[in-house]
Amino acid sequence: MQQEFASRLLEGAVTELSRLPGIGRKTALRLALHLLRSDQATATALGEAIINMRRGVTYCRECHNISETELCPLCADSRRDHHTVCVVETVKDVMSFENTGQYSGLYHVLGGIISPMDGIGPEQLEIDSLVERVTTGDIDEVILALSATMEGETTNFYIYRRLAPYTDLKITQLARGVSVGNEIEYTDEITLGRSLLNRTLFSDSIRR
Amino acid sequence: MQQEFASRLLEGAVTELSRLPGIGRKTALRLALHLLRSDQATATALGEAIINMRRGVTYCRECHNISETELCPLCADSRRDHHTVCVVETVKDVMSFENTGQYSGLYHVLGGIISPMDGIGPEQLEIDSLVERVTTGDIDEVILALSATMEGETTNFYIYRRLAPYTDLKITQLARGVSVGNEIEYTDEITLGRSLLNRTLFSDSIRR
Repeated sequence: MQQEFASRLLEGAVTELSRLPGIGRKTALRLALHLLRSDQATATALGEAIINMRRGVTYCRECHNISETELCPLCADSRRDHHTVCVVETVKDVMSFENTGQYSGLYHVLGGIISPMDGIGPEQLEIDSLVERVTTGDIDEVILALSATMEGETTNFYIYRRLAPYTDLKITQLARGVSVGNEIEYTDEITLGRSLLNRTLFSDSIRR
Repeated sequence: MQQEFASRLLEGAVTELSRLPGIGRKTALRLALHLLRSDQATATALGEAIINMRRGVTYCRECHNISETELCPLCADSRRDHHTVCVVETVKDVMSFENTGQYSGLYHVLGGIISPMDGIGPEQLEIDSLVERVTTGDIDEVILALSATMEGETTNFYIYRRLAPYTDLKITQLARGVSVGNEIEYTDEITLGRSLLNRTLFSDSIRR
């Protein structure tokens, strides 16, 4: 049922808020009424932050990560290893890998994975530009860091085939195994199988 | 863990979004990335709708409902019954009662209910202004339409005592009974008891 609003401005804010993913009209109304109760500076700060972000943030021409400059801070950082490229699905994944503190190479954001069910083919993703980076750049290793799902594996395989002609290039993928903190009892058999096949020296884990 | 953001503008938007109730940093990031993917007009419309709403919406000087004018459209409407005032907790309740289409009187928004646990006493609520409306206005009936909770009943009783000196004033409250659509099996005994005591003529329900 369409609600009666006392104010067209409130109605406008509710309509715009409810366009956000996972936010229905009821939640949007709750958020709008909260903003009405909070002081004007808070509401203005939120509104301006959204507008400024959308205006100011663009995508890096090299790795397609979000950036405020043509080349993102990661690609522009000469201290990073420019010979290694980690291929990820989204901008969020870049943040996740950066948060591990274990990686000092560059990234390449595909913008998704191949998913025929959602109508996403290779041409919708930044795969051509990855091949071009490999062709023109001085890249030694491409790390495929996509989800361990059917779609992820398909995309991995597609990229692998596109990059196979570059015989000097090392193409690696993330280790598959038991998640840290997970119990064996609740780990699926395919993962257990892969973790057996790819078992590592215990002494290596001590040294780290 | 604090996330590393590729952009301070993104960081700013995430921080502001995560101030909203029920929205943590993870959800805020998801919303911000969604806004980055959507076109600029959408993000600008959202930002401006929030700013304009907070700037333009004020509270009615009579009933304390939200309004864009000093006197809200309900209080300013001469076709409504100005002799009946329905006392509600929040702006949202006004919308709910308006949506019933069963009420043509005025409202009085308390801004909450008495709740010692949350440190809310009568002085934080619009109770004095209600008494003043009754004193100065031409009001015949005050309908207490607060939640059927302990806090609601306490507030009802407090208002009743404040208005008791006005002997000509009719003070009513919402009917308590079995909610429409509810099964008897799942209705609590206090509600069942009240619904027995306040039973109504079946022929009345047919006529409506």
